[in-house]
Amino acid sequence: MENGSERWRVRVNERLNKTSETTIRGTLAKINRNLNKDDPRPTVPLGHGDPSTFPCFRTTPVAEDAIVDAVRSAKFNSYVPSVGILPARRAIADYLSRDLPYALSSDDVYLALGCGQAIEVILTVLACPGANILLPRPGFPYYEARAEYLQLEVRHFDLNPEKGWEVDLESVEALADENTAAIVIINPGNPCGSVYTHQHLKKIAETATKLGILVIADEVYHHLTFGRNPFVPMGAFGSIVPVITLGSISKRWLVPGWRLGWLVTCDPNGILRKLGVVECITGCMEMASDPTTFIQGAIPHIIEKSGEDFFSKTIDTLRVAAYTCYDRIKEIPCIICPNKPEGSMFVMVKLDISSLEDINDDAEFCLKLAKEESVVVLPGAAVGMRNWLRITFAIDCSALEDGLERINVFCQRHAKKK
Amino acid sequence: MENGSERWRVRVNERLNKTSETTIRGTLAKINRNLNKDDPRPTVPLGHGDPSTFPCFRTTPVAEDAIVDAVRSAKFNSYVPSVGILPARRAIADYLSRDLPYALSSDDVYLALGCGQAIEVILTVLACPGANILLPRPGFPYYEARAEYLQLEVRHFDLNPEKGWEVDLESVEALADENTAAIVIINPGNPCGSVYTHQHLKKIAETATKLGILVIADEVYHHLTFGRNPFVPMGAFGSIVPVITLGSISKRWLVPGWRLGWLVTCDPNGILRKLGVVECITGCMEMASDPTTFIQGAIPHIIEKSGEDFFSKTIDTLRVAAYTCYDRIKEIPCIICPNKPEGSMFVMVKLDISSLEDINDDAEFCLKLAKEESVVVLPGAAVGMRNWLRITFAIDCSALEDGLERINVFCQRHAKKK
Repeated sequence: MENGSERWRVRVNERLNKTSETTIRGTLAKINRNLNKDDPRPTVPLGHGDPSTFPCFRTTPVAEDAIVDAVRSAKFNSYVPSVGILPARRAIADYLSRDLPYALSSDDVYLALGCGQAIEVILTVLACPGANILLPRPGFPYYEARAEYLQLEVRHFDLNPEKGWEVDLESVEALADENTAAIVIINPGNPCGSVYTHQHLKKIAETATKLGILVIADEVYHHLTFGRNPFVPMGAFGSIVPVITLGSISKRWLVPGWRLGWLVTCDPNGILRKLGVVECITGCMEMASDPTTFIQGAIPHIIEKSGEDFFSKTIDTLRVAAYTCYDRIKEIPCIICPNKPEGSMFVMVKLDISSLEDINDDAEFCLKLAKEESVVVLPGAAVGMRNWLRITFAIDCSALEDGLERINVFCQRHAKKK
Repeated sequence: MENGSERWRVRVNERLNKTSETTIRGTLAKINRNLNKDDPRPTVPLGHGDPSTFPCFRTTPVAEDAIVDAVRSAKFNSYVPSVGILPARRAIADYLSRDLPYALSSDDVYLALGCGQAIEVILTVLACPGANILLPRPGFPYYEARAEYLQLEVRHFDLNPEKGWEVDLESVEALADENTAAIVIINPGNPCGSVYTHQHLKKIAETATKLGILVIADEVYHHLTFGRNPFVPMGAFGSIVPVITLGSISKRWLVPGWRLGWLVTCDPNGILRKLGVVECITGCMEMASDPTTFIQGAIPHIIEKSGEDFFSKTIDTLRVAAYTCYDRIKEIPCIICPNKPEGSMFVMVKLDISSLEDINDDAEFCLKLAKEESVVVLPGAAVGMRNWLRITFAIDCSALEDGLERINVFCQRHAKKK
């Protein structure tokens, strides 16, 4: 019997094979494959924002207790409505309303599998033939990967490193046309570590309303701020422009693996309902997988009982790490850091490629750094800026110091001899 | 300031608005809206297969303990590889290999968010322009909804109620052409309660290999059999035809809300790799959301430690419920049950519409039954067979008896007077 592939009629969806090239996961997997297994030193993971493996970034016992209670109750083992269970939706509505000038209702909240599925849902909803969406550069490439898969056109506006990575609003106005559906704002900023002021966010809202486009506010790093500017949710300007806020417990509670996020309509004027966006979100959710029921069941407890002491300990740890990172980078030749990080878990730094002897771009820098120093860093090209790097400082502080020292040694070794 | 919808440029993806009409969730939501809130009797949910709210169908403490231990360890809070963590993949490979004539490797196993996401992934992988897929009628309409969304053409073959709901293989041969990618087999059967023999499954494999198409084996109800035929996995015929097995812990462990399933390549000849299917599954997984990490972490413990006593208690409870259901239905005028259920959680029964006074089809039957008797049953049209009903017997036995008695009273009330 013939068993070669030629007799099978199957063809596969080739659009999927490109995705690993465009996601952070795919890029980091490639760099990880370049690690030198014979290096006895531990690998320093400065590539992605997941501090939860380090004891100093362990979640609060309150959250663990809430999960245990929900599992032991046996009340949350079944299928539930695709938009999420009511007590969880209500708890999230109340939680987010604390920072808003109006109250959200539980109907505004849709539970999602982390922020990632919330991104998938809103892009799917907006993916009409011919439509386009405005994304920040640098940004979070899952938006690009998902949009490409959906055949939703992407147009990039710049974030300005000279102005604290603020949105270049003139370029936004120049990019938008009658097919533009929305602009995505990531604040606190990934990959830049920026935190926008009330004033800048208001200007973004005013620009969007003038253009007649929605704002998608990616606030997965909400409240993770430790600099001058406090966190202001984009939803505060929901009466100026309809805002769709995306978030999760992944970052503030340090549990990205729990997969509990949300998509929230911050739209006191009810425009999204009139536009059919609400109905379409519901339809999309109906086909999607749901977050684990007992985690939904634990959410009211997690939100209501987590203490300020837990949050402020995380902020203090992140602040020390961010400032350590900034100070150490200043000592490294060939790397320039234009802005001290003030939020999220990342900083963007610029490579001075011309001062390096045998390294031609950020990708080569990262591959050689992994091989020679067992340090993993994300090439800027992965987030839209060639010859920059995205570094996370959200790891154990001594590992961070070690990693930055190895980068320093690496840069000195590869610097052009004068 | 103008706040009407006309000034916003947003259009929405209209393909999504149809989905609630085609999913079981959407159909049941419509029937639930027809319940009479003034009826003091409890609603009897015979509509969908989720017994986990009933104490007699509580999961094993072993599974709850495994989750609690994983959460308390704080080792499983982080992001993990998109295909799942190795210990969980290995545990599932070993578990499924027990019933196969060859051993699966951990690389054959991809973790998914329940069986639902596994369906989404494999249909996405096969969705090429012009391709088609063969689906059973009656079947599980999530396949149809997802295929329609992906613009993957669906062709239906019949299951024959006169022959224990076996596949009509002649119609399969007539339907397939050079653009057919795969045939879907759901065994144990949803919605029919059928369990296929070794011989019939082998014939399906031989037909598929002759046609050069893959077999997608939906075995979410694996091992839930209580009649003459034992459960035989389709993967047993993986050397005849490449099989992609979909499954989950949802049904056997009675925890559909935990969202832990799998997609497994049962293909000892490595054909799926040669065809690019494996690479494409990996690419699709890279963009998808993952199952909760600590549930992945609990899987080895859940699989290795769950005792036979737990499984056999579930089977005994289901057998009593299934036979009770079959016997009671025989007493009801206007409803015919062609086959005693032998597996899964469902039975398909035929309505004799001509004997009813003021009911024109299955949809009207179910809407009136909900309103008058507070019993929820799925219209057969939702699973592809008009004027049939899908009834689940996987609920508490006294509630089941109560529900079937109410259906009996309802049918007598609406029967044509002789």
